[in-house]
Amino acid sequence: MVSSNALFDGSIMGSSVSSMIPEGFTIRPLEFTDYRKGFTECLANLTIVGEVTEQMFGETFEDMQRTGNYLIVVIEDLAAQKIVASGSLIIEQKFLRSCGRVGHIEDIVVAKGQQGRRFGFTIIKQLLELADATGCYKSILDCNAENVGFYEKCGLENKGVQMAVYAPGTAQKKA
Amino acid sequence: MVSSNALFDGSIMGSSVSSMIPEGFTIRPLEFTDYRKGFTECLANLTIVGEVTEQMFGETFEDMQRTGNYLIVVIEDLAAQKIVASGSLIIEQKFLRSCGRVGHIEDIVVAKGQQGRRFGFTIIKQLLELADATGCYKSILDCNAENVGFYEKCGLENKGVQMAVYAPGTAQKKA
Repeated sequence: MVSSNALFDGSIMGSSVSSMIPEGFTIRPLEFTDYRKGFTECLANLTIVGEVTEQMFGETFEDMQRTGNYLIVVIEDLAAQKIVASGSLIIEQKFLRSCGRVGHIEDIVVAKGQQGRRFGFTIIKQLLELADATGCYKSILDCNAENVGFYEKCGLENKGVQMAVYAPGTAQKKA
Repeated sequence: MVSSNALFDGSIMGSSVSSMIPEGFTIRPLEFTDYRKGFTECLANLTIVGEVTEQMFGETFEDMQRTGNYLIVVIEDLAAQKIVASGSLIIEQKFLRSCGRVGHIEDIVVAKGQQGRRFGFTIIKQLLELADATGCYKSILDCNAENVGFYEKCGLENKGVQMAVYAPGTAQKKA
């Protein structure tokens, strides 16, 4: 059973980013009830979602909540009660750097028809704030070459090359 | 309290990689007692380790063990009882891809003086086996441009760009 409707304690999000959100929208932690607000449909703007039943969503949500290392934020269109953007910060615990932590930014998505509101930029800024709030000594992400300029505007810089290998039979799309 | 001396169940490592290890060495999960076998000294060949007391190591180990998402493998020199190589697979749970999982390969290190035994290659192969065993649909890692050829030999391919931002005052070294 989920211990709270929110994936994590929203008070660590701070307030500097929420002021960037236009009226009629809100930015907040992913909630258990977001399955019915089109969270997975929003993810489908990024890559293959496949079958995710409400039960699968709930079990995965509980598992993420249990570890405490998944900070997924969403932007909701309040009138439509629809999730229109999302991004994830996965906190990796290390032994090096005095048992330091690294933030992995993953699955940044803005729904079609929601462009022009800087939701992508806002989500990244929010995830970087969360990385600070949780004591990460760095945050990293992987992107295509054509998105480097966008992420530079968000304050990140090119630091290396991403390598990947897919399991046999897996379609190689983003994320 | 740790529930087991091993960070994870070693039986999921399979046997195809262990045959690549020369006599006098073993490949296995990180163990709680590896602090006294020079695990953190081995990590120092990669990047800044800083202060990691035995208590800090133990608490971090327990936290990783609790989540079940940290598969750290080491190669031990059995005669010297020293850790001479290590690598980490962090399993990220997603909602997309039918609640799929991605393996993040991190902190590949071989101690100075241990080159020429293909320990780096062996560690990568072992982590990819673990990614398969735990159902990851892909495994990813970030590296410097000069290491792309090595990782291509391990079966990975260049898929994008790594972007990063460091917390203020953080020394920007590898990992």
